Amino acid sequence: MEFVTGIKEKETLELSELLAEGMAGNTVKVNGFIHTIRDMGNVAFMILRKRDGLIQCVFEEGITNFSLKDLREADTVEVTGTLIDSEKAPGGIEIRLSGIKVLSEPADPMPLPIAKWKLNTSLEAKLNYRPISLRNIRERAKFKIQEGIVRGFRDFLYQEGFTEIHTPKIGAKSAEGGANVFKLDYFHRPAILQQSPQFYKQMMVGVYDRVFEAAPVFRAEKHNTKRHLNEYTSLDLEMGYIDGFEDIMAMETGFLQYTMQLLEKEYARELKILEIELPKTDQIPAVRFDEIKRLVSEKYDWKTKAPYDLEPEEEVLISRYAKEEWDADFVFVTHYPSKKRPFYAMDDPADAAFTLSFDLLFRGMEITTGGQRIHDYHELLKKMEARGMTTEGMEQYLSAFRYGMPPHGGLGIGMERLTMKLMGEDNVRETTLFPRDLSRLEP
Amino acid sequence: MEFVTGIKEKETLELSELLAEGMAGNTVKVNGFIHTIRDMGNVAFMILRKRDGLIQCVFEEGITNFSLKDLREADTVEVTGTLIDSEKAPGGIEIRLSGIKVLSEPADPMPLPIAKWKLNTSLEAKLNYRPISLRNIRERAKFKIQEGIVRGFRDFLYQEGFTEIHTPKIGAKSAEGGANVFKLDYFHRPAILQQSPQFYKQMMVGVYDRVFEAAPVFRAEKHNTKRHLNEYTSLDLEMGYIDGFEDIMAMETGFLQYTMQLLEKEYARELKILEIELPKTDQIPAVRFDEIKRLVSEKYDWKTKAPYDLEPEEEVLISRYAKEEWDADFVFVTHYPSKKRPFYAMDDPADAAFTLSFDLLFRGMEITTGGQRIHDYHELLKKMEARGMTTEGMEQYLSAFRYGMPPHGGLGIGMERLTMKLMGEDNVRETTLFPRDLSRLEP
Repeated sequence: MEFVTGIKEKETLELSELLAEGMAGNTVKVNGFIHTIRDMGNVAFMILRKRDGLIQCVFEEGITNFSLKDLREADTVEVTGTLIDSEKAPGGIEIRLSGIKVLSEPADPMPLPIAKWKLNTSLEAKLNYRPISLRNIRERAKFKIQEGIVRGFRDFLYQEGFTEIHTPKIGAKSAEGGANVFKLDYFHRPAILQQSPQFYKQMMVGVYDRVFEAAPVFRAEKHNTKRHLNEYTSLDLEMGYIDGFEDIMAMETGFLQYTMQLLEKEYARELKILEIELPKTDQIPAVRFDEIKRLVSEKYDWKTKAPYDLEPEEEVLISRYAKEEWDADFVFVTHYPSKKRPFYAMDDPADAAFTLSFDLLFRGMEITTGGQRIHDYHELLKKMEARGMTTEGMEQYLSAFRYGMPPHGGLGIGMERLTMKLMGEDNVRETTLFPRDLSRLEP
Repeated sequence: MEFVTGIKEKETLELSELLAEGMAGNTVKVNGFIHTIRDMGNVAFMILRKRDGLIQCVFEEGITNFSLKDLREADTVEVTGTLIDSEKAPGGIEIRLSGIKVLSEPADPMPLPIAKWKLNTSLEAKLNYRPISLRNIRERAKFKIQEGIVRGFRDFLYQEGFTEIHTPKIGAKSAEGGANVFKLDYFHRPAILQQSPQFYKQMMVGVYDRVFEAAPVFRAEKHNTKRHLNEYTSLDLEMGYIDGFEDIMAMETGFLQYTMQLLEKEYARELKILEIELPKTDQIPAVRFDEIKRLVSEKYDWKTKAPYDLEPEEEVLISRYAKEEWDADFVFVTHYPSKKRPFYAMDDPADAAFTLSFDLLFRGMEITTGGQRIHDYHELLKKMEARGMTTEGMEQYLSAFRYGMPPHGGLGIGMERLTMKLMGEDNVRETTLFPRDLSRLEP
């Protein structure tokens, strides 16, 4: 028997430690992937790829107890050497190698030139070689920023008194119903994969007032577009005791403000690698659905084909309008028509054809749907009846209302879409680690 | 058009704000659920349930502009009144009501006595009325602590240089294969729900060195026990450049140390409500599988029926042994037999019948499986071949190794089990928000 007492300090150093003041001159030990080797004859440069960046190592024949020809790209190694300041090296430091230990070796040469700054490969190729293409510095930076977005979501909401919940993804009935659900066999009973944690987060408002979840959702939609995924991560929140759906928009604005600050502070390296300019979030225009439709049709001579919804081209025009008229990257579109919103959406008492709900558009694309929900049991039943819905299988959801629920509302944000628009990508698969679409189930 | 500029300060106060120094004497506005009403004739006490606790309100006929008989339990209300110090009230403060506004009303009286301190109801009843039973102060405290566990996991790992990933739950082939996978139809192609993010987190070690994910996993196991769920939240990590599987155990110990401190600091209220004594994590014994089997069989006169595995009763005995001999709540059992570990587990070079792997037992139950993985492509292929496995459908996973992977390892922690043992519950459903088991698909 031996006791494990916790993490011990590692002998090997990370890039941030190497970059610390006063490190130059020290003998250091560093591990990493061999990113590239550039042999200049009497001297060779080996770039190590570490999780927090690249470090240049200088290999001088005779000094290092290892032959250059025994090394190749994608080896993982542990090197020893003297850290020196070097203006020409990336980051301003390099390691004069004295020793190298090979930790592992690849079986074959790289199928993609991942050491290039920009991976000029088709999206298809990138996805087919996903575990490899992600090793590219720019490709992996995208998902580091995605981490920051989710982290910002959680940290901001903790601060605002929200509780994190974990709700089941297998269920007996879907929140939004319809044909677009994946079906599975659950011990000889029919089951579905949840399209959204909607019902669960509403039920949990009765418990914690404010809840959130960042988790996968599943949509069996047969869209093969640049903006649809069949599985994605949804950033969901739901909050009670609201005065109106404006409180939900304010919370989302607060999240965006908090997260952009977090990215600036903690993810500056990745923002720089990807040359990302963060959007303005100090004030986000909110405009009615019918009003913005009118404004856009007038300004751009646009004829809508979808009076009760927004077409993708229309979302682009609305964002263009918001940029031109209000200098805004984000725009809330409020008061969506009732017939395009789910049964639990609260209708506007001033005009029941519209709902107290919103979408958030970001640079031409919807990234959020939210709004106030019906909280009165009888009202909810009435709306379901009016839509010809059955309450069968909905008893548990309805019981939350039957036994009392505060006024509440919430929203869901598509994590991959938000990441996509933040970095100016034009296909949501570019910002999805392992996308699932009509044709793609692997890797 | 109007601008949304972020969250505004609310007029209504939360409990933490009411409890702040110097608040007594102020007129305050507070919202919440009516938890209980106790009518004493000329005076009545109304307890409000808020997300951070209870607050007593005093209702004096004539002073409040509202009749007591118009109020009932499970109304949500907004009250106005004077905050006063009161030794007898919970928390030492109460509100002398002057006004009440009813925000919402239930349709029916409560089906469960949720205002009782302990909800003396069967587990079955609690689960059947899940959205209601969770409103009980003690029930909801469990899942607040669960939040703290996951939060501790993430925050500790961020600090240790890990990157959070989001991997797909629908896939073409399972990491661990076998019969215990849920199958679904994916646009007329056979698909499965992932039993673990194992393959994905290993692939991502080649990208970020250290990764983690806290997400649902799905197991179609036909066990109907107190410790099995068919869907649960797995806290997974995987890390590269390890010197041995001891590094993984050290990381888990570090996580536990960090998290217990976080719970003590940020979740003291819930720990008190549930009377939880936190386990010791300063040193966790690690003992070989064969050795602890021998020790336990000798000390307790126990005859194992599973030479290559641990029976549930044996896990209890091992924990008892660890408590008695080493005063330990946790115990690592190392070097599991190869035949009971998956193909990717690294065999012990000293004796290939055993692996460089471990389980962590906590108060009599396995809550973690982890270990070092094979990182060499050819070795991995050899092991698969020896087990008669096909590489078909595994090409992407294998490509990560083919193109180079550092030595690495990782672990998976069952969130619900860790919560369960932390609070001394004897059924994992007690610490699962909405459990999925052989018979339960709802709510």
